[in-house]
Amino acid sequence: MAAGEPVLIVGSVAFDNVKTPLGEVQDALGGAAVYSAVAASFFSPIKLVGVVGEDFPQKHMRFLASRNVDLAGLQRLAGKTFRWVGHYDGDLSQAHTLKTELNVFEHFRPRIPVDYRKAKYVFLANIDPELQLQVLDQVGCPELTVCDTMNYWIENKRDALLEVLKRVDVAFMNDGEARELCGTTSLVTAARQIRDFGPSAAVIKKGEHGALLVTDSAHFAAPSYPLEQVVDPTGAGDSFAGGFIGHLATTNDISEANMRKAVICGSTIASFNVEDFSLKRLATLTPEDIAERYREFRQIASFEGLE
Amino acid sequence: MAAGEPVLIVGSVAFDNVKTPLGEVQDALGGAAVYSAVAASFFSPIKLVGVVGEDFPQKHMRFLASRNVDLAGLQRLAGKTFRWVGHYDGDLSQAHTLKTELNVFEHFRPRIPVDYRKAKYVFLANIDPELQLQVLDQVGCPELTVCDTMNYWIENKRDALLEVLKRVDVAFMNDGEARELCGTTSLVTAARQIRDFGPSAAVIKKGEHGALLVTDSAHFAAPSYPLEQVVDPTGAGDSFAGGFIGHLATTNDISEANMRKAVICGSTIASFNVEDFSLKRLATLTPEDIAERYREFRQIASFEGLE
Repeated sequence: MAAGEPVLIVGSVAFDNVKTPLGEVQDALGGAAVYSAVAASFFSPIKLVGVVGEDFPQKHMRFLASRNVDLAGLQRLAGKTFRWVGHYDGDLSQAHTLKTELNVFEHFRPRIPVDYRKAKYVFLANIDPELQLQVLDQVGCPELTVCDTMNYWIENKRDALLEVLKRVDVAFMNDGEARELCGTTSLVTAARQIRDFGPSAAVIKKGEHGALLVTDSAHFAAPSYPLEQVVDPTGAGDSFAGGFIGHLATTNDISEANMRKAVICGSTIASFNVEDFSLKRLATLTPEDIAERYREFRQIASFEGLE
Repeated sequence: MAAGEPVLIVGSVAFDNVKTPLGEVQDALGGAAVYSAVAASFFSPIKLVGVVGEDFPQKHMRFLASRNVDLAGLQRLAGKTFRWVGHYDGDLSQAHTLKTELNVFEHFRPRIPVDYRKAKYVFLANIDPELQLQVLDQVGCPELTVCDTMNYWIENKRDALLEVLKRVDVAFMNDGEARELCGTTSLVTAARQIRDFGPSAAVIKKGEHGALLVTDSAHFAAPSYPLEQVVDPTGAGDSFAGGFIGHLATTNDISEANMRKAVICGSTIASFNVEDFSLKRLATLTPEDIAERYREFRQIASFEGLE
């Protein structure tokens, strides 16, 4: 089991109905908090805060518990679990949402258990920024807070999102979201502007083009892993963020140099995640798989000192 | 002056009228052969084959000669020099062509001077693949042949282009062209297919997302240089290819490891090229500038062993 600083993760737990060019799943375990928690659990113990309905099966609870995910903060409310219905067509970077059933999530108010509040590493997965602010109000003084978001909040809750950005250390966004938030086509400009909003580091996810980490002192361009076939992109960004914060927590080192490695850890986990539907691939993933792919990333990115 | 194996470059020499969000130029020196020749000239001596009209001024001839570009193969025909009129709007990765005046280029038949034919390094810049084949028929047995192309030839001269691909060692394409040629959205699949057509290496240019080098043994993802402001993207791909082959020629080493460095050399020159209109930035560029930016690329791509 991974040892290291625990990571508090707050976000959605969901059932997903997903169709991609390579197949489909119904009632599959999903949600940003689940993907990021399972990803981060390869590195550090996880404390999960979210909500499920009465229909959330014990097998999923057992799966998460088996992955080093503490579920004391997972609320169970009367009603149904949040559900996302969507599909991906030719362009796997573009999810098409058919239906979002908030269900119990509609009334979710994050309550952080007392013993979670001193967590040094906190990940605010993609949820309403007003809920993200409620989490920030409850936690003490974390070593590192990381947030993710999505275009819906950029368009509909911009002020709350900007308030979140003022208060976190690292902001994750995909390229389209970064461009939309900052009103620019240049990702370099967008990354600078995001940092002007508050976070000391911006991480811009570019799907098949990798990711950018921009800090005060550095611009790091991480490649993506060259997968010829992506089975299901769902959760790629969440598992990327989970691998990122998991690595930082287990090493308890938030230096810029270590953040670069954390980006590669995130890319590694995300590249596995998209190889199968839902959490299937992460469920069988081993530390040896992760170590080997991390080494492959080194080969992909190096242009000097190769043996 | 750069010393090393000479590079034979065949392609267009042009006047460009270009408008971008940051300004415009009229009658500016351009053309794929010019951009790639000037870029490659920082590394190796160049032998240029192309055609100009009676209106091509002596100052451009002098400029090219001063850059270590041998102009004995530059034909001068009655009529006007090839002209491209285009603009870039918000999305600088997308050139909009308003007018292409072939002029003397319409009757261009590449004639490779006898003493050029033993060149070990040959770059077939973006021209009609039938002309590229004529060049291949005239050269002896180069150490390395590299070709570039564009969507127009993919759509209108596919068979000739496939014939070229059968006979070259390295194929350059941008991401959209690679996807179009191979009928796939996956760049990994496209790179494999391009290699199946013949070249042992495929280089896919992704603009702000960098470039991919795919060979039998490796997949190398090169970052782009984080420019906040691109003044004029014209010639970026050509100067990238020029820097690539120039580095290979001056080191006379076509190993996979050295090709990776060549991609970074290409990216370095291209990143300077787009900082100003036409060849303005390359005209003032120094070897020290190049060496410094190459080192910056190392910082941008590294996630281990940073000091």
